Amino acid sequence: MFKEAIYHRPKNEFAYAVDERTLHIKLKTKKHDVDRAQLIYGDPYDYDPEEDCWISQTKSMSFNGRDDLYDYWIVEIQPSHNRLRYGFQLEGSGETLYFTEKGFYQSKPRDAIFYFCFPYLNAIDVFSPPAWVNSTVWYQIFPERFANGDPSINPKGTLPWGSTEPTQHSFFGGDFRGVMNQLDYLEELGITGIYFTPIFLAHSNHKYDTIDYMEIDPQFGDKETFKELVNQCHKRGIRVMLDAVFNHSGFYFEPFQDVIKNQAKSRYKDWFHLHGFPINTTGSPNYDTFGYVSSMPKLNTENEEVKAYLLKVARYWIEEFNIDGWRLDVANEVDHSFWREFRRVVKQAKPDAYILGEIWHDSMPWLQGDQFDAVMNYPLTAAVNDFFANDLISQQEFEQAVTKITNMYPETINDVQFNLLGSHDTSRILTVSQNNKDKVKLQMLVQFTMAGTPCIYYGDEISMTGGMEPESRKCMIWSKEDQDLDMFAFVQKLISLRKQFKLFRTNKGFSFITASKDENILSYQKSDHDSVILIMINKHDQVKDATLPMAFQNKMINDLWSAQEIKTTMKIQLKPYSFYILQLPKG
Amino acid sequence: MFKEAIYHRPKNEFAYAVDERTLHIKLKTKKHDVDRAQLIYGDPYDYDPEEDCWISQTKSMSFNGRDDLYDYWIVEIQPSHNRLRYGFQLEGSGETLYFTEKGFYQSKPRDAIFYFCFPYLNAIDVFSPPAWVNSTVWYQIFPERFANGDPSINPKGTLPWGSTEPTQHSFFGGDFRGVMNQLDYLEELGITGIYFTPIFLAHSNHKYDTIDYMEIDPQFGDKETFKELVNQCHKRGIRVMLDAVFNHSGFYFEPFQDVIKNQAKSRYKDWFHLHGFPINTTGSPNYDTFGYVSSMPKLNTENEEVKAYLLKVARYWIEEFNIDGWRLDVANEVDHSFWREFRRVVKQAKPDAYILGEIWHDSMPWLQGDQFDAVMNYPLTAAVNDFFANDLISQQEFEQAVTKITNMYPETINDVQFNLLGSHDTSRILTVSQNNKDKVKLQMLVQFTMAGTPCIYYGDEISMTGGMEPESRKCMIWSKEDQDLDMFAFVQKLISLRKQFKLFRTNKGFSFITASKDENILSYQKSDHDSVILIMINKHDQVKDATLPMAFQNKMINDLWSAQEIKTTMKIQLKPYSFYILQLPKG
Repeated sequence: MFKEAIYHRPKNEFAYAVDERTLHIKLKTKKHDVDRAQLIYGDPYDYDPEEDCWISQTKSMSFNGRDDLYDYWIVEIQPSHNRLRYGFQLEGSGETLYFTEKGFYQSKPRDAIFYFCFPYLNAIDVFSPPAWVNSTVWYQIFPERFANGDPSINPKGTLPWGSTEPTQHSFFGGDFRGVMNQLDYLEELGITGIYFTPIFLAHSNHKYDTIDYMEIDPQFGDKETFKELVNQCHKRGIRVMLDAVFNHSGFYFEPFQDVIKNQAKSRYKDWFHLHGFPINTTGSPNYDTFGYVSSMPKLNTENEEVKAYLLKVARYWIEEFNIDGWRLDVANEVDHSFWREFRRVVKQAKPDAYILGEIWHDSMPWLQGDQFDAVMNYPLTAAVNDFFANDLISQQEFEQAVTKITNMYPETINDVQFNLLGSHDTSRILTVSQNNKDKVKLQMLVQFTMAGTPCIYYGDEISMTGGMEPESRKCMIWSKEDQDLDMFAFVQKLISLRKQFKLFRTNKGFSFITASKDENILSYQKSDHDSVILIMINKHDQVKDATLPMAFQNKMINDLWSAQEIKTTMKIQLKPYSFYILQLPKG
Repeated sequence: MFKEAIYHRPKNEFAYAVDERTLHIKLKTKKHDVDRAQLIYGDPYDYDPEEDCWISQTKSMSFNGRDDLYDYWIVEIQPSHNRLRYGFQLEGSGETLYFTEKGFYQSKPRDAIFYFCFPYLNAIDVFSPPAWVNSTVWYQIFPERFANGDPSINPKGTLPWGSTEPTQHSFFGGDFRGVMNQLDYLEELGITGIYFTPIFLAHSNHKYDTIDYMEIDPQFGDKETFKELVNQCHKRGIRVMLDAVFNHSGFYFEPFQDVIKNQAKSRYKDWFHLHGFPINTTGSPNYDTFGYVSSMPKLNTENEEVKAYLLKVARYWIEEFNIDGWRLDVANEVDHSFWREFRRVVKQAKPDAYILGEIWHDSMPWLQGDQFDAVMNYPLTAAVNDFFANDLISQQEFEQAVTKITNMYPETINDVQFNLLGSHDTSRILTVSQNNKDKVKLQMLVQFTMAGTPCIYYGDEISMTGGMEPESRKCMIWSKEDQDLDMFAFVQKLISLRKQFKLFRTNKGFSFITASKDENILSYQKSDHDSVILIMINKHDQVKDATLPMAFQNKMINDLWSAQEIKTTMKIQLKPYSFYILQLPKG
């Protein structure tokens, strides 16, 4: 066995609490190297005086996927007294090895002190995301471009809706009244959560350059209108998440303006990271910024006043407007200490608020239960794009990438990860897919049949196009003739199925099916006590015959997409760019 | 190259801030597999539009040791804007590989998004242990057994000092006045910190069964006496650390007694984890306990009242008595959330207080900067015992064990780890060493020439003996005839050298020297800008000739132990159980 490749370390994604009684223990080993993995476990204090050894039991671990380098294993355990010592008994290459915190042994160590330790499952340390998130379908709205419902508050220079391609500086007058006018549309689509990019006072059309975090930008409406919007959403079962840009302020944020005016004498000089006076706001700034953007000075979130101000903001929009979550912009560059306080304040104000960090890379340090509930799952976006849209990776590589991503975090995190195919920060999915709508549909199918909480970027459901911003931020198309109603119906159906079938929303019993590998059909299944769901996808422009897994052969099976029972044989035929979602009841 | 064995993941011990400007980046690779490791690094926002790629530089990583499976690599970096993206360029087995967050590549990925990310070095997240800890030498006092200075407060049934072997229930009347009377002794020895096992009101002689956390046990003295003791210690430059037993209370803790009396009606019923009424305090308890000890009910540290009470305790002894640190009993079984609040409260009361957790296993989850400053370094104790005292492991295995331990945590943690050869919870070092005093000396030498903060268990410096408790808790020997004055002088000299030479206290430039491997001489060196210190240890009962490292051959060298300059040749002779500490000035 390749001992060097075997990895486990308690906490993080390798040993974590699922609930107040249950732990998940995971392990990774070199690909194809271990035939059987068992957990050796027991209470740290159970000692057999006669045998002079620790008392332990064993439980088989389940294979949990394979990526380019590793096999993953998982087991669920309920320690009798909430305490656990444990190790691994591994069989492969004709040998048996015991893997413990102290290393590898040929025979089973007798003393509890050798073993890994999950010393106590304390309820308060259990990561528990809001229960509603996993069954929510999000819709991301860039408010300036969704709908103009109140022309009387149009900003200066507002262009006629959709009259031209947007530039980085154009305004079209999207506002809250516009969103309210379209709630029927959103409800018809079936979404149950709206993520708004920033709505606070700011000069730009994107509003990431905040002037006042306590005020709504008048181009969107006033506080009364926003309150009405939130209430109307809630009445329709739609949650509302706002965007918190706490890493940096805008140039015209009053404290920063005060610094410019009063320099070293400003009472706000500690609100930022200034490296000298006079501060230099043109050219290369002598203060910390977002990227190198001198008009976006980094906030000093270690300063007590700044902290108090931002935490007041976090509380205010929850308490006064009843919003349901915060999406945190450039979350990775703000200190952990601030986010820990942020979580305390937010969860105090609303225990089931959703805290979503914008982090594009590995985010485990922010997902320890003390900071965020989830991050934007861009690694999944990349894997899906690379496979379906760009043909950059093979089916095997796609399966490996998904396996790696789902094994990167605890399953409790995976269940609420924010899964997106695009956003205001990317090209639109249809453009990424070279305008191939069939490819977009298959990517959405994957997005909606994965654990997590899927989000649709406004307009993707009617096949809007656009490259990187400003292209991706075009005005929403409202004329039915110009909307892709077929795509709308497709998304609507996906949403409806996801709501109906719980297995769409979890990775319980997830595995890729390699039976049809030679046929280049992507197949994966999930299962719970009641049923197995099998998804088969033909991403090719040719008809493919695929072999069904044994359990699905020669049976009457529910075809969930057509909502019909079908009689299967050994094989099934998939048209170009088509798929099956088959459900087999258990027992 | 064995890709499967290569491991890096940001934060924890692999990527951490050393100070407000500096990061350490570490990597592990399969043993003997990689010839050269370089860090590829740059600012996440540095982009070259002409080359259409991320702008990066490279820096060589240093080899940082080898254990049974892995080679360790380290590099120090000061990111220009406190932000870092990075990857690794690895050369070995005739190939060059690029290792990034997204995986391994044959050629260098062009886009920053591939690379690992340390998004921002925020000052508040930098782990900064109290500056005094690394240069402190601790002395652990079990107060009942150190010195009886005030017989008038002897508990009932007190036995004459040292008149008999202690049992689990005997009392000898050690007290604070006794400690004060012996401060000259401790100052002569040279220690600069005292760690007291519990002193609060409790029935047992060890006081781990707390009755009242706000009161001192009268057998030790009163609050005035304790205040006097702390003041006297401080006047002599000796810090004071107390033992906080917050995982569980004693049976006679008033809230628990109230539960016994009033059962389900007790206002304290939520202070514990009770699983039914009436509570069953004999036999198998129907409430959570420490181990299976029904007289030690686990405290519900998630309960707001319990939290408030314990945090008041934590603050009270700092604010009223000016203590310098808390050692936390059974720290691993208390929730992380409580410890985070504990740290806030303690550091608010005294910013440079030392927070030391009792954890025997891998403790990374508690050493993230938000909970403890250090843990009791029992893994080092085990390695030292196994090699020197018990001959259980070879020299190579010892070197591997030490390498593994020092690479388990950030170096900032290693610098304040609590290094001990024994405690009230183990057998005494002399007994572990089968009464071989020479072996004890060599273990102390290692203890005092390692990064961390060493602690002497009372009496070890005069060669007291004893197996597991109650044997290890004998009365301190005060008659000079019965004290081992040679051992005392040895420890005194070690302490003095450790104070004098900074290199004793850090692992800067640490490496084991394999030149003398065939000769079975354990050799290691450390170095800074000014000098190199070489430690050579003969743990055998025979004379050994050892080859000096090249740099130390044929030179005038400072022999720090004899405080003489010696003229070296190529080899040096070590008597049985002897050692050299040689210092070579640089340049």
